[in-house]
Amino acid sequence: MTRPQVGSLAVNQQLTPDGKLKHLLSIEGLNIGILNEILDTAESFSSIANQSVKKVPLLRGKTIFNLFFEDSTRTRTTFELAGKRLSADMLSMNLKASSTNKGETLLDTLNNLQAMYSDMFIVRHQDSGAAQFIAQNVAPHISVINAGDGRHSHPTQALLDMFTIRRHKQDFTRLRVAIVGDILHSRVARSQIHALNMLNTGEVRVVAPRTLLPAAIENLGVNVYHDIDAGVKDADVIIMLRLQKERMHGALIPSENEYFQRYGLNQRRLKLADKKALVMHPGPVNRGVEISSAVADGPQSTILEQVSHGLAVRMAVMSLCLGSSGGQNE
Amino acid sequence: MTRPQVGSLAVNQQLTPDGKLKHLLSIEGLNIGILNEILDTAESFSSIANQSVKKVPLLRGKTIFNLFFEDSTRTRTTFELAGKRLSADMLSMNLKASSTNKGETLLDTLNNLQAMYSDMFIVRHQDSGAAQFIAQNVAPHISVINAGDGRHSHPTQALLDMFTIRRHKQDFTRLRVAIVGDILHSRVARSQIHALNMLNTGEVRVVAPRTLLPAAIENLGVNVYHDIDAGVKDADVIIMLRLQKERMHGALIPSENEYFQRYGLNQRRLKLADKKALVMHPGPVNRGVEISSAVADGPQSTILEQVSHGLAVRMAVMSLCLGSSGGQNE
Amino acid sequence: MTRPQVGSLAVNQQLTPDGKLKHLLSIEGLNIGILNEILDTAESFSSIANQSVKKVPLLRGKTIFNLFFEDSTRTRTTFELAGKRLSADMLSMNLKASSTNKGETLLDTLNNLQAMYSDMFIVRHQDSGAAQFIAQNVAPHISVINAGDGRHSHPTQALLDMFTIRRHKQDFTRLRVAIVGDILHSRVARSQIHALNMLNTGEVRVVAPRTLLPAAIENLGVNVYHDIDAGVKDADVIIMLRLQKERMHGALIPSENEYFQRYGLNQRRLKLADKKALVMHPGPVNRGVEISSAVADGPQSTILEQVSHGLAVRMAVMSLCLGSSGGQNE
Repeated sequence: MTRPQVGSLAVNQQLTPDGKLKHLLSIEGLNIGILNEILDTAESFSSIANQSVKKVPLLRGKTIFNLFFEDSTRTRTTFELAGKRLSADMLSMNLKASSTNKGETLLDTLNNLQAMYSDMFIVRHQDSGAAQFIAQNVAPHISVINAGDGRHSHPTQALLDMFTIRRHKQDFTRLRVAIVGDILHSRVARSQIHALNMLNTGEVRVVAPRTLLPAAIENLGVNVYHDIDAGVKDADVIIMLRLQKERMHGALIPSENEYFQRYGLNQRRLKLADKKALVMHPGPVNRGVEISSAVADGPQSTILEQVSHGLAVRMAVMSLCLGSSGGQNE
Repeated sequence: MTRPQVGSLAVNQQLTPDGKLKHLLSIEGLNIGILNEILDTAESFSSIANQSVKKVPLLRGKTIFNLFFEDSTRTRTTFELAGKRLSADMLSMNLKASSTNKGETLLDTLNNLQAMYSDMFIVRHQDSGAAQFIAQNVAPHISVINAGDGRHSHPTQALLDMFTIRRHKQDFTRLRVAIVGDILHSRVARSQIHALNMLNTGEVRVVAPRTLLPAAIENLGVNVYHDIDAGVKDADVIIMLRLQKERMHGALIPSENEYFQRYGLNQRRLKLADKKALVMHPGPVNRGVEISSAVADGPQSTILEQVSHGLAVRMAVMSLCLGSSGGQNE
Repeated sequence: MTRPQVGSLAVNQQLTPDGKLKHLLSIEGLNIGILNEILDTAESFSSIANQSVKKVPLLRGKTIFNLFFEDSTRTRTTFELAGKRLSADMLSMNLKASSTNKGETLLDTLNNLQAMYSDMFIVRHQDSGAAQFIAQNVAPHISVINAGDGRHSHPTQALLDMFTIRRHKQDFTRLRVAIVGDILHSRVARSQIHALNMLNTGEVRVVAPRTLLPAAIENLGVNVYHDIDAGVKDADVIIMLRLQKERMHGALIPSENEYFQRYGLNQRRLKLADKKALVMHPGPVNRGVEISSAVADGPQSTILEQVSHGLAVRMAVMSLCLGSSGGQNE
């Protein structure tokens, strides 16, 4: 696969000419109207969880392929469950093990899958831009959802985080949000920053050692802190990132223990934030590395709530892309 | 994971305060009323197999996770099929390959899965007590079914065996049941002995070399035989155990061939039993090791019938745990 | 597993005494009436793809096992999707990884699966005759579909090819069809030749180097060409075979590049054929080995169409075998 260009123009392909959601590739290229529509639709789906029958027939007879070029049991499962709750036919393909290793190109594989009258591809890929490349090359009737591509983007994670914040805090314009940790390798952080900006968040801070910050991060409109105590002071929301050990080739941090000493969130540091501050983490948590167990399991933590919201947000994105919003069917 | 205590008190957590089945972790802690309710409910499901549409909507919209920490294609498939016939949404996770190897703890994984609004976890684990540990740590709305944990318990297997015996023999109080083989490593045997005792079986015998018997097995109320000819004499039911080759580290038996000579069930030995004796085996069969092909495929064998009954019993347990019995819905 | 005999008598087991389709094991043993019934039924299913809800309830409550003894993500996925669109309960088992490696025989595995009240086994196996062996040994209520067995047969592929030809060409008796490539290792080619003969195709040609032709291929009623230019001249249909690299032990071809020079289909050679000739390939395509990209992606190529038709044909075969044709239900 040729490494595609990830440009800002191209991402506008996410919306149809009349402004409806077609693909979800990255937060950039969306607008606040679409963002709120997704969050509102997710709100309507989140009540399903309290019903005895946790299922709606919105996507019955739709065919959705979960295409995983990179392992992620958790993300794959979440999308699979979201699809099943929408009554879609879900097929999961581990494409590392598929005919791509019989010499077939990625495009041939995609063309084959769309010839089976698919409606949606959910794509997880280790290369930045992969989902966008696929969206540019599929038939017009197919929607593509990016379930994480390289260091680029993980938009459903950012959306579920926004959903979680909105549930607790309503007005984004008054919020101080601190994102702490490995910004450099984090597709989650990139997507969060774009979403927070789009929602006019009062202040977005990134807190990290210099070695874990991308160059020119200030251009994204964030305030940079290298000291966590200063970074979380008076914050309304603290988003801890996962230390991507498996992505960290070379010695960007001295040791996990020292990382925790310098950048881990413990109870003392949490007290520096607003006393109603939320503590967020995309999971899976490295306990004692990014965050102490007392904080991860404490009353301000929204970590498990985020998982629940992830289902509602994914159901919202899948149904909106396929033209069925939660409120209007059946 | 801390190795939990497997105590007799704790297993009463299987029942709700008003005596309904909540979890199925082991036969101990159940009572004869529940046992009969499971078998009666299974009876109502066993007729589904003769219908053209082998499906009932009892668990529609329920989310059931098949959590396999140990491989078992057959058991996983049986539960998956039972769940699909109840119209549940089934998700299978091989947790050896999952985020537990990203450093996440077992409890974090479980918490994540229950945050997706699961209704049931079916757990297969190589450690004794794992299912019980999980049941003690899940949210109140989740049911846990033990699909085999270490050497401890395999309650659905024991229940399907009781179902099979009841189909042929009605009154347990008059029966002589001989369990033959590797009692030491067998979670199946432990569960069978408890179930047979609970159903007031006339006599329960265990037949095995000393090396394949746990210490103080007599305390479970069984008669011990080291000679198979004596052990199967006049028996009404002969349950052959699988020789767990993969569990047998070290030389507990001299050779497979010698094992067959001393403990295998052949036609001559079968003639020593009651002439209507049932021959049972949990599968998969090691032909010529535990049992000769002539006996395994003979008219007294219930081996394949047990597989069929396994589906009905699992459907019964799943629906009872989730509060829906076979007879009363739709 | 004992290697079964693959004889012409045995394949008549595919039809019930009153001539209905029971198993699909190979094209031999079918007749033109059945062939046309399958193609007509597929026609009725192919319109489903244009519907918003791509699903019919024909096989609701049926249990279908996808039994793969050999990897084939693409074929497995196609059958799984076909089954889901018919509303069947689909279970996929990778039998390389299953209890067959716990020492259980193939027949024991099959007996277990049919004891779960299965309705259909879809079988992919590396040994010729495996599907037939299984069909001879299953219970009377079970249908078996051959999804490819060794070098023997791949009947659903041949049927979808016939469906594709019929869509474009109507009358088979006037057609010249050239099959080009590795005839020797191709179960697809064998099945295609039998199907084309059964449909009274005007002329069937095989085009291959001597090393890639089976002995006595002329006995199947085909004309043999060793020169591709002569072989495709005036052809109405050119079927390119996949070069089965993974099956080609030893040096039957000098190099991929030389193979393309001598037997690859390029635009110059395509011009020798009828100007409305179809270019077919079962996929996955080795671009630049069997076929140039310009031809594979050109206007005469039906490669992706074949994939779409594969779904309709598999739905037709599955529903006919289980006694439900597309037109008569609901």
